[in-house]
Parts: sequence; C-alpha cells; structure tokens
Amino acid sequence: MEVYNFSAGPAMLPKEVMNQAKEHFTDFAGTGCGLVELSHRGPEFSKVLDEAQTDLRELMEISDDYAICFIQGGASMQFAMIPMNLMLPDGFAEYADTGTWSAKAMKEAELFGDVRTIASSKDSNYDKIPVIRHWSPDDKASYLHITTNNTIAGTQYHAFPTSKAPLIADMSSDIMSRKINVDDFAMIYAGAQKNLAPSGMALVIIRKNLAERAPKNLPTMLKYSTYIEKDSMFNTPPTFTIYVFGLVLKWLKRMGGLAEMEEINDAKSEALYELIDTSDFYRSPVFPESRSKMNVVFRLPSEELEAKFVADAKKKGLSGLKGHRSVGGIRASIYNAMPLRGVETLVDFMNDFARENG
Amino acid sequence: MEVYNFSAGPAMLPKEVMNQAKEHFTDFAGTGCGLVELSHRGPEFSKVLDEAQTDLRELMEISDDYAICFIQGGASMQFAMIPMNLMLPDGFAEYADTGTWSAKAMKEAELFGDVRTIASSKDSNYDKIPVIRHWSPDDKASYLHITTNNTIAGTQYHAFPTSKAPLIADMSSDIMSRKINVDDFAMIYAGAQKNLAPSGMALVIIRKNLAERAPKNLPTMLKYSTYIEKDSMFNTPPTFTIYVFGLVLKWLKRMGGLAEMEEINDAKSEALYELIDTSDFYRSPVFPESRSKMNVVFRLPSEELEAKFVADAKKKGLSGLKGHRSVGGIRASIYNAMPLRGVETLVDFMNDFARENG
Repeated sequence: MEVYNFSAGPAMLPKEVMNQAKEHFTDFAGTGCGLVELSHRGPEFSKVLDEAQTDLRELMEISDDYAICFIQGGASMQFAMIPMNLMLPDGFAEYADTGTWSAKAMKEAELFGDVRTIASSKDSNYDKIPVIRHWSPDDKASYLHITTNNTIAGTQYHAFPTSKAPLIADMSSDIMSRKINVDDFAMIYAGAQKNLAPSGMALVIIRKNLAERAPKNLPTMLKYSTYIEKDSMFNTPPTFTIYVFGLVLKWLKRMGGLAEMEEINDAKSEALYELIDTSDFYRSPVFPESRSKMNVVFRLPSEELEAKFVADAKKKGLSGLKGHRSVGGIRASIYNAMPLRGVETLVDFMNDFARENG
Repeated sequence: MEVYNFSAGPAMLPKEVMNQAKEHFTDFAGTGCGLVELSHRGPEFSKVLDEAQTDLRELMEISDDYAICFIQGGASMQFAMIPMNLMLPDGFAEYADTGTWSAKAMKEAELFGDVRTIASSKDSNYDKIPVIRHWSPDDKASYLHITTNNTIAGTQYHAFPTSKAPLIADMSSDIMSRKINVDDFAMIYAGAQKNLAPSGMALVIIRKNLAERAPKNLPTMLKYSTYIEKDSMFNTPPTFTIYVFGLVLKWLKRMGGLAEMEEINDAKSEALYELIDTSDFYRSPVFPESRSKMNVVFRLPSEELEAKFVADAKKKGLSGLKGHRSVGGIRASIYNAMPLRGVETLVDFMNDFARENG
C-alpha cells in the first residue's frame, strides 16, 4: 500500500530524495564511508555545502547582499536570536500575532525590548491574517516580524506588509512553496523539518548589513555574524541535514523550480478547498482569503466523526491527518513533497467518507 | 577494500549501526515512512527517545538525580549555555586550560562572569594534563570546568579533580569510551559527532538541582530547565541524530557495555603507543601519563614524510589521519566505533612505512 504522510512536521520528503539518501548512506561519493561519518572540513562535505548554497541562491534568486546561514535549534532558537541580534538599544519591535508560533516569537522578544502587536487575529482564534492595509507600521521599529504560514490555524499571508523597518519573516512552513521576492525581506528564516529537510536546523537568509547591528557581547554561537563570517562552519554543522537539504534543492530544480512548485501547490490546495466548500459534511474554520495552501484544516460534524476519519484514513495509507492537539479537527499538511496524487487519494477518501457517514 | 576512517569528527559509526539506519531509512517501524519524516510527537519517535534515555541511564549508571537532555548546537553552544545558566551573580568560574576547546569554552564564559584559570598547559603547547594534585580549587567558584579529552593535542584526563564547586566536564571526545562515575560530576556534556551519533546535537547530563540556579530571564531555548521540564521536546528535536544515538547505545549494550568498551579501547591505544615508543621513526609529542586513548597524535621525522604517510595510508583505505591544521603531524582518532582490526591494520601499515622510509 502506498503511504501518504500528511504530518505537519517533521514531514514527508520527496521519495526520490529519500531513496538517494538511502542508497548512498553507507558509501558517500566513493569514500567507503557515510556522509555522516566524514569530516565537515573535508572535500566531500565542502562540496555539499557549496552546492546547497548555490542551488538555493538560484532557486530563490537571492542576491549577494544576503548571506545564507544554517543554524541549529530550529525556528524556536531564531525567536531568541532575532531580538538578541536585531533589537536596537532601548528599541521596540513590531510583531503580527497570527498564531501560536507568532506568540512564541513575541514571548522571547519581550526579554530584549518592547514588543508591540501591530495586528492580531487572536480574539477570533487566529482564523485569518489581519487585513494588511489596516496596519500602520512604525518606521522607527527595530524590525517588523510576521509568520507567513500558520500551521495550527491553517492561515497564510497571500501578500506582505511593507515598512521602512526591516521586515523579518518566519517562513518555516511555506518556504520555497511559491515564488517570493527575497528583496522584500530583510531576513527570512525557516525550521527545516517541513519543506526543506529533516529536523535539526533553521535556514536563515539575512541581509548582511542587518547582522552588523548586533551588540558586541553576544555569545559566538548566538551571533549571526559568526555564521556569516565562517560560512556556517564555526563549529560542526548538522552535516546530514544540510546534505538532505541539498538533495531537496536538486529535486526542486528538476521539478522546474518554485514557479512550477507553486502551480502544483495551488492545484493541491484548490482540490481540497473546493471539496470542503461544496460539501455539507466538511467545513473550513478559516476565512477564505487567508487560507493556507500548506496546511488545510477542516472540521467534521462531530469530534467522534473526526476521530473515525483519522482512523479510517490511516487504514487507507493516509497518515498524520489529526489536527494539532490545541485546536482539534483535521489537518492535511501538503508541503512541496506531497504529490498531487496523494491529495487526489485524500479527496477520494473524503468523498467516500462523507457519503458513508454523512 | 575495507576502509577505516580515523577522522576526528564527524567520525565513523559502528558498521552495524550504519547498516541498520540504512535498512530502515525509508520505512521505519512498518510506517511506510522514514523516521526523518515522522512527527516527533508520534508513538514511533516517542519510543526512540524513551529507549535512548533508558539505555543511556543503564550504560552509564545515571541516577534519577540527573536529567538527560538533547540540545542542538553541539558543544560550542554549551560553552555559552553553561555560564549563562550556571555562573552565580557576580560570580567566578574555574577552568582548566588544556587545549583549543578549553580556551573556546573560557572565551564564552568571560561574557558572563570572571573566569579563573585553575591550571594550564598552554605554555608547553598543551602537551599534558596539568598534575591534578597541584590544583587548588576554590569552594566558592560557580563551577569548575574541565575538558576530559583534547582531540587536537591528544591528551586525556586519567583521573579527575574534586571540588566543593560543581564539576562540569566536556567529554565530547571520550564520553562512553570508559567507565566513569557520573556522581563525581555535576554536569557532563558532549557533542555527538565523535563517540555518539551524527553531528547536530550535544548530549547533556545534568544534576537537576543545578539547573535551578539559572536566571529567570534567559531565552527559553537557552535554559537547561526547558529541556529538563519538556524532556528535550519543547521544540522539534534533531530526531535522526537521536535515533542513530539510540542505535549506538544498543550496539554498546551488545558489545558488553562500557567496561568491555574500555578494555577494547585500551588495547587499541596500547598497540599504537607501543609501536611509537619502540620506534626510532615515530615519536609522540605528549607526556606519557597524559596520552589520549581516543586521539593518538604522533610525528614523523619530517613534514614531507608526514604528507607521504597520509597519502600512502589513504591508498590502503586508512583515511582521516592528517593532524589538526593548527598543529600538523598525524592523528589517529580511534573512538568506540573503530574496531581493533582497524588499528591492527594501521599498525601494520606504520611498520611497513617506517621500514620503507626510515
């Protein structure tokens, strides 16, 4: 039975990538050793690191004004590193509160300066992205922080705010799922385990001159400048995660790049939302204009039916569909690696389930 | 040709472990998904995490007074987290300076308090562990920090200091290579990529009540209490690294545990040191009482011969023998995963090389 894994993260990786990583696991590049066993300073890993950076620059059209850093600790460590490095002395930062992860980022920033909520959908259970034209960004903010996709609530920005302050985006759950203009952001970061690679690092794309703002007395491992100056090799990086990330990038190139990926992702999410919107059985708790193309959340008529849905789906090879424990319901995470075929299989199952249980 | 990889880290892993990880890479525990693709909150990874902790407690005889934490960032992140969490207000800490890694740890600690050098071998190029009976630990120190094995200099503690202050040991390069008494330490930590697993995390074994000392205003991801209270699952941990670590622990149990491992490691290092000490061609720069059983460093009559040695060895399947770029010479890293057979092959090669080039 073909298994389609709709887990929100760690999430499925492209089948080709998984097979490549397996094939070379114990003998990388003819060394007789696995990549995980090789020195990070040797020629084999140096090539892996270089190619990952080159391929990422090409796919996302990243200019030399930006550095690409691989930093351990996931997005959660970035929640702290951002204010540590980028909050101006006696400064304040603006955060849009669009979900659990935004709120966690704000909590860490409060340790380092004044945190101002520029917009929030908290009072309506994060069911939308607050309408951006109503925001009033303050030019004097140290930075403006947004979370472009909210895995738990199932919302996503389909346009971005502009501010004279540096715009910082947590793209953990939608990075490389669509074309964006990197120059619109001062910093983009993403935990790896959704759209990029196994867990264990964050990808950080940061405008080099922004990193110069950091106080001088930060610990070495918590300064962006360390990663920029040492090319993410001040200490031993997570070599296997970077290697698999590199394989994912080459897969994205073979797939045609981000514009092609975006079309596939549009088709996948449209198939699910169309079913939900034309159904009396399924319902979306999210405002249509704010719906996520990565995490499609929906409800059934009862929690009992939702539990049966998850259990029956699993028997058909459709796993990881249970909504986040904080909100319940169903969540289908359909990142880049989820093929259209997987979504079609889910749609068929949903139609059958509604007919049999409606 | 059988390849023996003497790299200092990331280093070779047991062949059985590599084969197991490969076999299950795309289908873990019958899920049809790889472990790297599964949610860290699911039953499969929960079992992996639980078993790793249980097996580690058994192998190292760790009491419930201690927590076991998996923290991203390697030992280098610990260099900062230790003083951030454990330096008392207006306090000082004592560090023994026995090599490059001790010095790096001291540099980070200086950001958070007064750093006092309790002992140092820096003036003699770190060729020994300073004689411990000459140390005078200060009971009022926030803690006393040592580096039990020094990969670059090739030295190792064969006894440990005692102090009323908490003893903290960086065991990155000799953890689980021998029996130690965990109760002699307040905290033990180790980057994973030498004796434990692929790169991407540090193992931290910390007395629970020590962690309570931390200031309240630390970022969540930089507090030991977060990892203790959330069982290293506040955010997504490096699941693959922890999984391979678990396989290594089960391999250690099959090998007979740490006492048996210590005997094998003694035999391996003795074979090399005996050859070096009876040879007119090879010479050890390290005081005999301080020699490392993990990283055997030695010199040849000239740098030209050293370069030839490394190149010729590589042709015979003996890789990673070049000394650290900061000191030159030859370094054979013979962690747990290096079988006795690998060392015997190296000894044979060294005898041949000396005869042909001496």
